[in-house]
Amino acid sequence: MAKVHLPKGTRDLLPAQMHHRLAVIDTIRSVFTRFGFAPLETPAFERIETLMGKYGDEGNKLIYKILKRGKGAERGETDLALRYDLTVPLARVVAMNPGLALPFKRYQIQPVWRADRPQKGRFREFYQCDVDIVGSKSPLADAECLAVVGTALHELGFHQFTIRLNDRRLLRAMAEAIGAVDQETSMLVAIDKLDKIGVDGVRAELGRRGFDEAQVDRIFDMLDGGEIPGTAQIEADLDTLRGYAEALGAPAGCIKLDRTLARGLDYYTGPIFETVVTEPAIGSLSGGGRYDGLIGMFSGRDVPAVGVTLGLERIFVVMEELGMLGDSKTASTVWVTLFDEETRGDSLRVARAMRDAGLNTELSLEPQKLGKQLKKAHRAGVRWAVVVGPDEAAAGTVQLKDLHGDFKGTLPLAEAVARITSG
Amino acid sequence: MAKVHLPKGTRDLLPAQMHHRLAVIDTIRSVFTRFGFAPLETPAFERIETLMGKYGDEGNKLIYKILKRGKGAERGETDLALRYDLTVPLARVVAMNPGLALPFKRYQIQPVWRADRPQKGRFREFYQCDVDIVGSKSPLADAECLAVVGTALHELGFHQFTIRLNDRRLLRAMAEAIGAVDQETSMLVAIDKLDKIGVDGVRAELGRRGFDEAQVDRIFDMLDGGEIPGTAQIEADLDTLRGYAEALGAPAGCIKLDRTLARGLDYYTGPIFETVVTEPAIGSLSGGGRYDGLIGMFSGRDVPAVGVTLGLERIFVVMEELGMLGDSKTASTVWVTLFDEETRGDSLRVARAMRDAGLNTELSLEPQKLGKQLKKAHRAGVRWAVVVGPDEAAAGTVQLKDLHGDFKGTLPLAEAVARITSG
Repeated sequence: MAKVHLPKGTRDLLPAQMHHRLAVIDTIRSVFTRFGFAPLETPAFERIETLMGKYGDEGNKLIYKILKRGKGAERGETDLALRYDLTVPLARVVAMNPGLALPFKRYQIQPVWRADRPQKGRFREFYQCDVDIVGSKSPLADAECLAVVGTALHELGFHQFTIRLNDRRLLRAMAEAIGAVDQETSMLVAIDKLDKIGVDGVRAELGRRGFDEAQVDRIFDMLDGGEIPGTAQIEADLDTLRGYAEALGAPAGCIKLDRTLARGLDYYTGPIFETVVTEPAIGSLSGGGRYDGLIGMFSGRDVPAVGVTLGLERIFVVMEELGMLGDSKTASTVWVTLFDEETRGDSLRVARAMRDAGLNTELSLEPQKLGKQLKKAHRAGVRWAVVVGPDEAAAGTVQLKDLHGDFKGTLPLAEAVARITSG
Repeated sequence: MAKVHLPKGTRDLLPAQMHHRLAVIDTIRSVFTRFGFAPLETPAFERIETLMGKYGDEGNKLIYKILKRGKGAERGETDLALRYDLTVPLARVVAMNPGLALPFKRYQIQPVWRADRPQKGRFREFYQCDVDIVGSKSPLADAECLAVVGTALHELGFHQFTIRLNDRRLLRAMAEAIGAVDQETSMLVAIDKLDKIGVDGVRAELGRRGFDEAQVDRIFDMLDGGEIPGTAQIEADLDTLRGYAEALGAPAGCIKLDRTLARGLDYYTGPIFETVVTEPAIGSLSGGGRYDGLIGMFSGRDVPAVGVTLGLERIFVVMEELGMLGDSKTASTVWVTLFDEETRGDSLRVARAMRDAGLNTELSLEPQKLGKQLKKAHRAGVRWAVVVGPDEAAAGTVQLKDLHGDFKGTLPLAEAVARITSG
């Protein structure tokens, strides 16, 4: 007997999980659509040169590379790679479709693959739900992204979440204020760890990275709200942005200005944001920001953009832990039993009538003992059992049993359908 | 300026195509659910040993293999491979979940990848929509598969299609009848080409494969309806199966017994079926059959199964060519304009009210000239323009314009919402 396994960091989504997923994706898709975003899908793999070098050294290591077919395979040559995120593919789509009307508001809900260390809520195959607005510098574009995330989480049932909001230009101004413009990225990387290693940890890390004590003190003074020279307009704009986002539907009070938010990725150029929940501790559920330099990289055009990603797997972990998912409705509504060869045609006819009425309907495939069939239906969580025996077949009736309640009776098929349909 | 390309044999699905796809997938999913099938999803890649050797020599060549990360990569070693179909992953799921209640009726709608020669309606990444019933030998299981395909195609709007139905055991009996049991597969491969190369072509090919003229004559006599010794029961059962499938909802007359149907894959053991349309000529839209030996290969158990695949890409090609897709509803319903800084807050409030009413709503991101904004809305295909200027803002009203009709008027926001909602 051969033993089979799943690839590390992946899992199957069995019916119970799939029912929840489909419902959650439906909600997210409907919010995205309501905000005027249009769907896009791209291939699972890209040409390897499209992806390599876009995610830093760390990213390069985590990209799944695909062996060439035929020639070159024997030398281990690769020509394709699995999608690492949905942003670089978007940049490629924009470059390859110069006729797209701008601003282009697209959403994309697809899996991405990273050979990362698996941990709670982190898999090697995971779904991202992205919205991006390409081709607009308007702060309303940023506000739409904040509002769509706030609305989606609200409609999924989240009531306790914070959207942290900051601006990369504030962080840059901080680096300038301490005379360390060249060390901006290094400073960012250290600040980004504040949640994980705390103030003392970041102070130590900044020291290791060559910042002196006066610089470190000044950084923390500014992180704590001290003045950052020359940023009054940026701060006022951030506050205005928060107001726009709330006006557009982000739950009141959920957006909080937070100078300590750094966001790892290098490519952000303006406002940045990240959604966190306090319970359970799992990192961010969504993140995004303005990135005016990335989309144009393939087209040579200057294309401003802002976008945000909802991480489906983490959203699920949180919804599961907080008991937000409810019962998984995996079961059909109706189970039609099979009595014997003689009445088989009647069972088929009844099953078809149920389905024609739009009812999700199971049909017994074997004429086992009635008790056994009903047990199966019950175990599967089906509510209504429809028994068709010789008497019912002759009379054009069915026996209807509510497996979740008391009702039991023999009635004409049409009445049975009506009874089930009315709940 | 960097030039970017798509990988060969793949494409992007832009909003206009995506709207059609989402609608078609919705229909298919709802029919699958109505027939009592439950959703399953598996990872895009499997361990390479799970896939290799399951699709013959030809298949082995078409599988996309993934390079190891870290150690072994430099030697070109591979450990993973992209899913080639949805059946082998199903077998793995069944083996890894011995507690699954049987029969297990699952559907799965996911892409698969094959490094095949691209042609019309054939891509290297393409979606399969599979239903399978695992763990039942009942002919009703086969009938459910036939009925679910017939119903799905019917609800998608297909009216002219044929489900060809045959049984592998008839083909085997033919090989026995000509004393060529050992050449059964060779005979099948030749017969399978009948559509492509015609009777003379198949006769020649059978000759090349070592069948003598008497054998070839006998094969064609049996293909044309001549008696196949010892198969009376199988033929009667096939006819019964057809009746069951029609009783369960396959459109009357669409299922035709056809002894020339061979189906390429080796693993079928009983009834086999394939759906074809006469216009346009594009090969089969769906195919399947009973395969009682495959699912158990990983578990060592004897697990009968029957299933069928709907090929989404071909279904699209046909629907497109036959004009069955209709207009793509990519547009939002409402476009809210932006007048100036002063009234911006009012525009945001109005956009939010529209969305709260469930209307898909675009918002101008820049206060361009009104004519320009309306032109954008019109070009995007949006029906209702909602203009919010200083007068409207002061009065708590909006100007509503039907861009597809005559209506134009100034009315309170709530009335505008009601008017749009009522169509």
